[in-house]
Amino acid sequence: MSSSSSTPQVKKRILSGVKPTGKAHIGNYLGAMKNHVSMQEDCENFIFIADLHSLTTVKNKKELQELVIGIALDYLALGLDPNKAVFFRQSDVPEHAELTWVLNCITPMSMLELAHAYKDAVAKGQKEINAGLFTYPVLMAVDILIYKPDLVPVGKDQKQHVEIARDLAGKFNWIYGDVFKLPKPYIEDEVAVVIGTDGQKMSKSYGNVIEIFAPEKELKKQVMGIVTDSTPVEAPKDPAKDTVFKLYSYFAGADEKKSLTDKYETGGYGYGDAKKLLLEKLLDHFRPFREEREKLIQDLGRVKDILIKGAEKARETASKTKAEVWDVTGLSI
Amino acid sequence: MSSSSSTPQVKKRILSGVKPTGKAHIGNYLGAMKNHVSMQEDCENFIFIADLHSLTTVKNKKELQELVIGIALDYLALGLDPNKAVFFRQSDVPEHAELTWVLNCITPMSMLELAHAYKDAVAKGQKEINAGLFTYPVLMAVDILIYKPDLVPVGKDQKQHVEIARDLAGKFNWIYGDVFKLPKPYIEDEVAVVIGTDGQKMSKSYGNVIEIFAPEKELKKQVMGIVTDSTPVEAPKDPAKDTVFKLYSYFAGADEKKSLTDKYETGGYGYGDAKKLLLEKLLDHFRPFREEREKLIQDLGRVKDILIKGAEKARETASKTKAEVWDVTGLSI
Repeated sequence: MSSSSSTPQVKKRILSGVKPTGKAHIGNYLGAMKNHVSMQEDCENFIFIADLHSLTTVKNKKELQELVIGIALDYLALGLDPNKAVFFRQSDVPEHAELTWVLNCITPMSMLELAHAYKDAVAKGQKEINAGLFTYPVLMAVDILIYKPDLVPVGKDQKQHVEIARDLAGKFNWIYGDVFKLPKPYIEDEVAVVIGTDGQKMSKSYGNVIEIFAPEKELKKQVMGIVTDSTPVEAPKDPAKDTVFKLYSYFAGADEKKSLTDKYETGGYGYGDAKKLLLEKLLDHFRPFREEREKLIQDLGRVKDILIKGAEKARETASKTKAEVWDVTGLSI
Repeated sequence: MSSSSSTPQVKKRILSGVKPTGKAHIGNYLGAMKNHVSMQEDCENFIFIADLHSLTTVKNKKELQELVIGIALDYLALGLDPNKAVFFRQSDVPEHAELTWVLNCITPMSMLELAHAYKDAVAKGQKEINAGLFTYPVLMAVDILIYKPDLVPVGKDQKQHVEIARDLAGKFNWIYGDVFKLPKPYIEDEVAVVIGTDGQKMSKSYGNVIEIFAPEKELKKQVMGIVTDSTPVEAPKDPAKDTVFKLYSYFAGADEKKSLTDKYETGGYGYGDAKKLLLEKLLDHFRPFREEREKLIQDLGRVKDILIKGAEKARETASKTKAEVWDVTGLSI
């Protein structure tokens, strides 16, 4: 054993924000949620529900509440452990909004005019673009910078957010002195695009999702609705070209995939059979999570309490960063 | 006595924000500060130092601290009584920044593009316009709306701020339900433009100010530097055309003005004599305030404490408004 055994290993801090967009589907699960949960084992895992970001588009009390509670239930059901991860709502930590104002004051308009979401809205001729949509990259920069994480896991389409956060951190430090840690994006190349029931990328907006917490009847409907080609039951089939097979592959072991490949290639095995197999697989895989979610729904008080306690933990860090910002800007007198 | 004597009269709530811009001069005093202080007698007087707004232009710790402490000293020296008025720093009340994010999400970009400060910056070709400058009308709307004042005393050039606040309040109430009180601007017509030492409007940017708290030597220099015409000492002079006389009039009683008018019209009385008279008048008028400010400087701890206690009082109202906003938007779960 080297001398390093006497040094306690410092866990890397990881920061993830999740904007609640509705019922979680296999794409959300494989693309992000599963990872967010598993990271609690080896990392100091900060994960927050980005409800302030939701306000840029959601203008309805009940809708926002259901989205937020829904995603909290999802994560806890999937095994996010509030004793291991710091799990909280963004709006419960006032420092996010406070530092956003401070960073707004050093953010050039020209930088925000180049941000994807704003450019998209302009390109689509969106009638009324609100100042929240325009300035949300600043809030997103604060979301990251305030916790000084070592890594920020993001999809490729979110890389710009981390770049803007990095630019603003650099600019702030240059003007006022070193406060912020320049964040590093951690792009997960391995997560291939998850395929939807119509063969396109799975996305709520395409209406091609399989929801992981849907009632069994609904789940069955979604699986049975997977689009397949018209190869007759008796004919051999190419697993590489079939959506049912691909979806099955996400959850099946090597033996199971081999077995299904054989059935496809032999013929006499219909897509309906494959869909039933997939449904079983999904129910097996998600059963413990689905059961846990049902239990949690019966105790929403506990869920809310977890989020409040999470925010208290988050504020231990956020208030320190705020104090540093207040100090160097002169807001502290 | 009518029955109304048994009904306690509810004081009107007045809200004023002051952006610290440097050493207070006669223009600031007559145009705003004097009123801000006197309103504490008959109104519930909320008055805050707009340090978050200062951040859009001030990027230096020491400068910001001096500005903020300076204006706090000024107001307290001028008689603002923390037991009568609620006097605080904007940055000590996190609800300002929090509600700004919420209102950003319903503020059309097109509204902000029409705001004076942004339009001026664009018209001047300002190189880098920051998002703080662009969105500051939203923060200013929150500054007002959060305290639900009955009246907002503003100069004519600030009328737009109250109009934007009114529009945003109406829009928010329409989307989410009645939370905000539509604010009423209270334009003070009586306050004429205060003249500076060169005959233009008194303004720091014109370098024509007489500072009310300047050391006596500096004050003398400013008064002696007043621009006058070249009428010789012995000749009669027209008081209506003279800057020294106008400045004297702001502080002199009717008898004093009559007496000086006579001297001007008789002749044999030089502008230098008039300047000495003005200086005496200013020193007399501001002596108790100047002495009080010197005392306060010796006890900055008390000044800071007053601001902290003021913020606590302000938050009693601000936190209630936040709770209402959180409730109707669904940010409270």
